[in-house]
Amino acid sequence: MREVKIIGVGMTHFGKFLERSMKDLTREACLTAFAEAGIEPKQIQSAYVGNAMAGLVTGQECIRGQVVLRPLGIGGIPVINVENACASSSSALHLAWLAVASGMYDLVLALGVEKLYHQDKKKSFMAIASAMDMEIINQFLALQQTKKEEQPEAKTGPESGGGGGRSIFMDFYAIAARMHMQKYGSTQEQFAVISAKNHFHGSLNPHAQYRDVYTPEQVLASPLVSFPLTRLMCSPIGDGAAAAVLASPEMAQKLNARQPVIVAGSALGSGMDRTMNAPDIVARVGKTAYEMAGIGPEDVNVSEVHDATVYGEVQACEELGFCPPGEGAVFGAEGHTKLGGKLPVNTSGGLESKGHPVGATGVAQIAELVWQLQGRAGNRQVPGAKVGLAENGGGAIGIEAAAMSVHILKI
Amino acid sequence: MREVKIIGVGMTHFGKFLERSMKDLTREACLTAFAEAGIEPKQIQSAYVGNAMAGLVTGQECIRGQVVLRPLGIGGIPVINVENACASSSSALHLAWLAVASGMYDLVLALGVEKLYHQDKKKSFMAIASAMDMEIINQFLALQQTKKEEQPEAKTGPESGGGGGRSIFMDFYAIAARMHMQKYGSTQEQFAVISAKNHFHGSLNPHAQYRDVYTPEQVLASPLVSFPLTRLMCSPIGDGAAAAVLASPEMAQKLNARQPVIVAGSALGSGMDRTMNAPDIVARVGKTAYEMAGIGPEDVNVSEVHDATVYGEVQACEELGFCPPGEGAVFGAEGHTKLGGKLPVNTSGGLESKGHPVGATGVAQIAELVWQLQGRAGNRQVPGAKVGLAENGGGAIGIEAAAMSVHILKI
Repeated sequence: MREVKIIGVGMTHFGKFLERSMKDLTREACLTAFAEAGIEPKQIQSAYVGNAMAGLVTGQECIRGQVVLRPLGIGGIPVINVENACASSSSALHLAWLAVASGMYDLVLALGVEKLYHQDKKKSFMAIASAMDMEIINQFLALQQTKKEEQPEAKTGPESGGGGGRSIFMDFYAIAARMHMQKYGSTQEQFAVISAKNHFHGSLNPHAQYRDVYTPEQVLASPLVSFPLTRLMCSPIGDGAAAAVLASPEMAQKLNARQPVIVAGSALGSGMDRTMNAPDIVARVGKTAYEMAGIGPEDVNVSEVHDATVYGEVQACEELGFCPPGEGAVFGAEGHTKLGGKLPVNTSGGLESKGHPVGATGVAQIAELVWQLQGRAGNRQVPGAKVGLAENGGGAIGIEAAAMSVHILKI
Repeated sequence: MREVKIIGVGMTHFGKFLERSMKDLTREACLTAFAEAGIEPKQIQSAYVGNAMAGLVTGQECIRGQVVLRPLGIGGIPVINVENACASSSSALHLAWLAVASGMYDLVLALGVEKLYHQDKKKSFMAIASAMDMEIINQFLALQQTKKEEQPEAKTGPESGGGGGRSIFMDFYAIAARMHMQKYGSTQEQFAVISAKNHFHGSLNPHAQYRDVYTPEQVLASPLVSFPLTRLMCSPIGDGAAAAVLASPEMAQKLNARQPVIVAGSALGSGMDRTMNAPDIVARVGKTAYEMAGIGPEDVNVSEVHDATVYGEVQACEELGFCPPGEGAVFGAEGHTKLGGKLPVNTSGGLESKGHPVGATGVAQIAELVWQLQGRAGNRQVPGAKVGLAENGGGAIGIEAAAMSVHILKI
């Protein structure tokens, strides 16, 4: 299969935009990406649109891509609407990559867009819960209800995810984090240092939802979501869109693309039932991506990983081979993943600070890496970055993410 | 790109299965397809899952494929969840085809599954409405509400789609049918003959949701949904699943596949804003598929087309070149599309009689064609059929289907 290049990216600010529609967010992200690529919307030959939750939040199902692209004059072409929970748009990117790599198309769009904020927060949280097996969720919720009735005085935990409730996923991340603490001796303080690092990175990113800087102590002092995770260690609810234009080498040349970035690896996997000690989904999918790219973790200069909570980053650093197993928290706490460190991770601020409009996250990670590799990341630039890796997971099946993608970009 | 073969298909009966889950329907369709292909579930290398409305009907979004495939022991592999309204699983098939044609995988699954029945019928109908731009739907519904308030005595039309409400799409099909009658002189009686033909075909199909035979007079006498369409001219609400296993020629040979069917053309398109007289989406996507297959309409021996209402079939026959423009109703009424006619259409009974569990329909069409080309269609067999064409449309954007796929199969 042939080489595939990214010749333009664009993203909206991430945030709470009750007044903006999915069409409006799409327009901004796409027009930026098209301008970078030097193309008109009508030149796109096929589009892959990742969105996870518009059906449950806005009522728009089935043809979300067609609906949001039409106002841009994009129609007629194949439009694939892809869902894979938080990995929806990285899955879209994977399809877009194959569409070009296979020789089927020369110029395609990968788009991620999400509006998660709703006046009725319950809608947002039930939509997030739908990234698991709803049979299990419903059993879990019934169990919680029974417990509440049995212990009417029991205090419920504070709210996370922007307030007004909390995603069931935070509890699962917390369980995994506690297991890590028990097994490897990692500490809540180490997690706090890593979160503070991400908020510092986010403060340098004009697209980030939150740009405040916090000390590790402030991270620890923020309301507890589910021990050991405090609110500042968790990604918020958010709205936003991100777009990438992919091209064949011939098309990139024809369009005189400035500094095209090569998609050196594009791997996707799903969760499986496995024993606790078998390689986990991040390791498995990462291995495929490394093999495609012909590189190893030691070659990666900058990385965006899926820190839906800080523990996600700790786990990803280990599973991707950035540090030895069990040392993810120490690795981060020692500053190796901070700007200036040996492998800056989540220079965008990550999901914790940049934000996490679910379906938009995967392509937004790609936008950050493209800017880094092109030397356009401003005061959060990793000097001389040549290889970037994005890891984006979604949903849950058994003890694993339901979907996982790893992309490796090179310049 | 290399040739792709279908080496196994399976489908459930279509019908009203309030007591069956998506997992249960998936299991039946997949295990049949795997048995035909002579493979174990774990051999599948990548899965493409089409479902349109589970989010709004059952609350399950995001990772539907992973959830329904897990009980079969399928995990770890890439799972792509695809939506394109009524064309969801033909879109999944298109992706599955490319995955093998590109050389990326040798053995993949295309699955369509839908549970549309719900105790609360409103849920089903709002889910169907979500196959359009919801901004427009909401404006339309508000307008209808205003009209009702202005004319409190006005009679509402009878119910369709299994009773208890009706899909907004029936009104759009009716408008198009009336325009056809006005422009070409087609009649409601001709439509009735075609629907009666489909119900006759469906009576021969053990998988069909409805197996009753009707005279054209009975079709005309069934309750009016939206003139000229009566209930028996419209597809019902339904539940079901359909699966197809696709393989590379080498893998098909290795597995000793019996009578593999070749995917000679796989084309997908989306709706666009166009003038009334420009080629419509069926014609455009059909042209691409014919060119890929290197054949023309005169070579097609059997066809499954998207008769969400009988008018869909009339239009498809014209746009696909089975008959001249404007003559679709006459062509059908003269018996050319009936078993024994020169080009039998919807030998399965079509969406009108076989049923239309939205996300399952595209792959179910493929199952019918595979059986026809393999000479396994029982008493609805088209003798010596060598080339089959499936046309599957979904949703609406402007005056067109939002998504459209045409597949051409050969043996």
